[in-house]
Amino acid sequence: MTPSPAWAALTAHHVRVADVHLRDLFAEDEGRAASFSAKGAGLFLDYSKNRITDETLVLLLALAAERDVTGRRDAMFAGEHINTSENRAVLHVALRARPGERITTGGVDVVPEVHRVLAAMAGFAEGVRSGALTGHRGQRFRTVVNIGIGGSYLGPEMACLALREFRHPGLDFRFVANVDGAAFTAATADLDAATTLFIVASKTFTTLETMANAGAARAWLVERLGSEAAVASHFAAVSTNIEGAVAFGIDRARIFGFWDWVGGRYSIDSAVGLSTMIAIGAQSFQAMLGGFHAMDEHFRNAPPAANLPMLLGLISIWYDDFFGAQTLAVIPYAADLARFPAYLQQLQMESNGKHVDLSGHPVGCDTAPIIWGEPGTDGQHSFFQLLHQGTRLVPCDLIGFCHPTSPLAGQHDLLMASLFAQAEALAFGRTAATLSAAGSPAAQTPFRVTEGNRPTNVILADRLDPATLGALVALYEHSVFTQGAIWGIDSFDQWGVELGKDLAGAIIPELDRSTAPTLAHDASTNSLIARYLGRRG
Amino acid sequence: MTPSPAWAALTAHHVRVADVHLRDLFAEDEGRAASFSAKGAGLFLDYSKNRITDETLVLLLALAAERDVTGRRDAMFAGEHINTSENRAVLHVALRARPGERITTGGVDVVPEVHRVLAAMAGFAEGVRSGALTGHRGQRFRTVVNIGIGGSYLGPEMACLALREFRHPGLDFRFVANVDGAAFTAATADLDAATTLFIVASKTFTTLETMANAGAARAWLVERLGSEAAVASHFAAVSTNIEGAVAFGIDRARIFGFWDWVGGRYSIDSAVGLSTMIAIGAQSFQAMLGGFHAMDEHFRNAPPAANLPMLLGLISIWYDDFFGAQTLAVIPYAADLARFPAYLQQLQMESNGKHVDLSGHPVGCDTAPIIWGEPGTDGQHSFFQLLHQGTRLVPCDLIGFCHPTSPLAGQHDLLMASLFAQAEALAFGRTAATLSAAGSPAAQTPFRVTEGNRPTNVILADRLDPATLGALVALYEHSVFTQGAIWGIDSFDQWGVELGKDLAGAIIPELDRSTAPTLAHDASTNSLIARYLGRRG
Repeated sequence: MTPSPAWAALTAHHVRVADVHLRDLFAEDEGRAASFSAKGAGLFLDYSKNRITDETLVLLLALAAERDVTGRRDAMFAGEHINTSENRAVLHVALRARPGERITTGGVDVVPEVHRVLAAMAGFAEGVRSGALTGHRGQRFRTVVNIGIGGSYLGPEMACLALREFRHPGLDFRFVANVDGAAFTAATADLDAATTLFIVASKTFTTLETMANAGAARAWLVERLGSEAAVASHFAAVSTNIEGAVAFGIDRARIFGFWDWVGGRYSIDSAVGLSTMIAIGAQSFQAMLGGFHAMDEHFRNAPPAANLPMLLGLISIWYDDFFGAQTLAVIPYAADLARFPAYLQQLQMESNGKHVDLSGHPVGCDTAPIIWGEPGTDGQHSFFQLLHQGTRLVPCDLIGFCHPTSPLAGQHDLLMASLFAQAEALAFGRTAATLSAAGSPAAQTPFRVTEGNRPTNVILADRLDPATLGALVALYEHSVFTQGAIWGIDSFDQWGVELGKDLAGAIIPELDRSTAPTLAHDASTNSLIARYLGRRG
Repeated sequence: MTPSPAWAALTAHHVRVADVHLRDLFAEDEGRAASFSAKGAGLFLDYSKNRITDETLVLLLALAAERDVTGRRDAMFAGEHINTSENRAVLHVALRARPGERITTGGVDVVPEVHRVLAAMAGFAEGVRSGALTGHRGQRFRTVVNIGIGGSYLGPEMACLALREFRHPGLDFRFVANVDGAAFTAATADLDAATTLFIVASKTFTTLETMANAGAARAWLVERLGSEAAVASHFAAVSTNIEGAVAFGIDRARIFGFWDWVGGRYSIDSAVGLSTMIAIGAQSFQAMLGGFHAMDEHFRNAPPAANLPMLLGLISIWYDDFFGAQTLAVIPYAADLARFPAYLQQLQMESNGKHVDLSGHPVGCDTAPIIWGEPGTDGQHSFFQLLHQGTRLVPCDLIGFCHPTSPLAGQHDLLMASLFAQAEALAFGRTAATLSAAGSPAAQTPFRVTEGNRPTNVILADRLDPATLGALVALYEHSVFTQGAIWGIDSFDQWGVELGKDLAGAIIPELDRSTAPTLAHDASTNSLIARYLGRRG
């Protein structure tokens, strides 16, 4: 990146503005809040409490232009093989295209196929919701257990929690991802097999964890219902490996496919969303897709300076690559968004946690930050101490909603007051002079000073509903895209996870009780395996 | 810190060893795995896959000696007012002292008082568990709802999940922290008031969130049971504000106290653990305290070079202050430890997220890192891509158990193989030469290379049981203590959270529907509040 003129200009600019305080930036410009805000797809973004000036924004937008972010965006929408290391198109945007829209790759319009699968999902989902589809003994389904990991887990779990208010009141949802048997045991301990539906989500139908848990589920069901034939009534699959799912015992009509141009972490609105659709119904699922689509259109059409995902992505790069921030905290002021940070963690870190550029050379600058967070106000009573008085620069995205999703509407004002107060406190802090004037004992004052100048984005929407959730997810998807485009990396492969899988594949047979393995790893791994073999009994 | 000789020696040493690869360190020393491991309180720590040499360890231990970590530790156990900014003793270690042991502060032995409260808790907990204590209508309690936030939430929730296998089979547990009404609504939607017990945990009985939710709970209960008198049967409190709890309607005999020498984030084994004790029983709670105590004794007595918490703390400082790492990932290979990273997040970031030293001067080096993580194997399919191939140095603690807590014991080998494989992969990586030799296409090879040299600690224990959980929590408590002692900060105050509370207190009346407020914040905060007032309707 260093030979880039835009990068060099930002580096020089950073030296000049790094120490400027938000107090001064606000004092100097009455119009700052108005000029540093933008709207799109139902979301309002106030980015004025960032450590940026008009010039910073000009230079960041010049970087985006130099790196041709809009060109790469258009190449994605055009179905080009922008996942170069795997030679694939990247078309999660097609998952939410409107009927009749054309999105092609390799000369084929993929939209009709998307809508065919959506219609099949809707038929199944509505059958489960209405009770038209029943279990082996003719009883209505009461619980849906989604078995899947990574992209086949985080999206469905996050959305199911986020859209709690929109869920079918007679259905409960569980998520089993971990190969640790405790995950399956805990999820099913209180369930009645006769009313339980399992969805096995694995693109290849070979994922270690998912197949182990699917096998456990099959055995659990057959034991309780006393019949192998029950499997066909109590299982559905989300997979491209139709024969594998059929061999497992799943009815062909209950296998929902997707495509090699959908990455796992971008699959929430593909068939992977089947559990979500059962939870909220096909119509609300369509509303969610509508929110995604609205943000896609905004990303595609809004000028960069008013383009929410581009702004978010550029501001993130400003902190990561110039201020040296290694993390981004995402704090949703909504208990129902408890798993949104974990969802974004995968989206950003798996997409942009890369060390080589598209040509395979070292990327030459820092790439993805670590995304983390807990809901506000919970976090305020936990890690916010560090945000206010720690030595680390932690940029934060604070997300709030103008309407509550609970009848306890009075508490919503307390929630939102907390959001506004935290953004204010992080930006402006409190000086020793202010504290002294308010009567702080001199000995305590140094401990009470908060420096401020901690940057936040505040994202406001009207209500946490399916359309808003879609727009929010797409906002971050395209922010991640923007960052990947600027770093010039492949945001759509994940080669880094291969080695761990390979090594686990080598260690698994060494743990077999019927063998006495010769361990040929490093001394530490050998010793850990030996200790395990000795202690497990 | 810069004038410190030990610090200067580490700075110089870092220049020499920063680029040394773990491959070479292991190749050079066959005994590395054995010499860089330690045991205590039932935990085994392999720290050999850290970027340290014998000399690093000598220098880190010299730093600990120079900063008098053992002296500060002894001052804590001696009940000195080591929380200087609040002039308080710090005696969470007294919460797990054995009967007859003496721990004094201000000349008073606090241990008898601790055991008096534990006995009162046990009486109540066993009454709930046995059904001897019933609700207003004479029914057994089926659900315990803990209402509390921060230290009154994260510990109970984490422990209740972690000790799933040890819980009373007839009792369910819920946790309401967030002031967002959705938290209370979701937790109580399917509950029967006649069988629901609420525990309100707030040291002061004035915490905004907790009082709002306690009020909601009271209204919910009285509406359903039709009687104010029901409150006495369905509520207990954990608080030092007895009169406040009594005024709420709680029976004096059901108010369990603690002391100003217990910080919220260190209160899991105080009366704040009441819900945990109801879940696992008084005997298992005692076993948990035994695990804490065993680690306390280890911390107190083991020489620094074999002292688990000191080693963990020193290694963390090595990455934070010399390698510039801003985070620590904690990856428990146990689904039941899903909330352990969030628990440690508070423990570390609220304790050591400080910017001034004990004398009130800027601390001069970086303090607490950001703690984050998700269970393995879940994380492997999410953010591990960045751990392996990102540009950030992320030290990781991997925690595993030799025995499963699920009848699906076969899956436990897959889980543990994954842990060992990840530690191996992170340390040693895979080179282009190895990939090419294995047939990787030349065009793909650069994308598949993993550099390795990513450090991990591996912590192994026999079983995730109450004693082990106690030892694990105490391990991190004392690691956090060690770090705070080296930085010379007050790990036991939390002044940084005051400003946000003050500002929220100012904004709350501005959101009152009966007023037309004049907003006098900065332009951004004014505009956000105005937008909220306009949109909420």
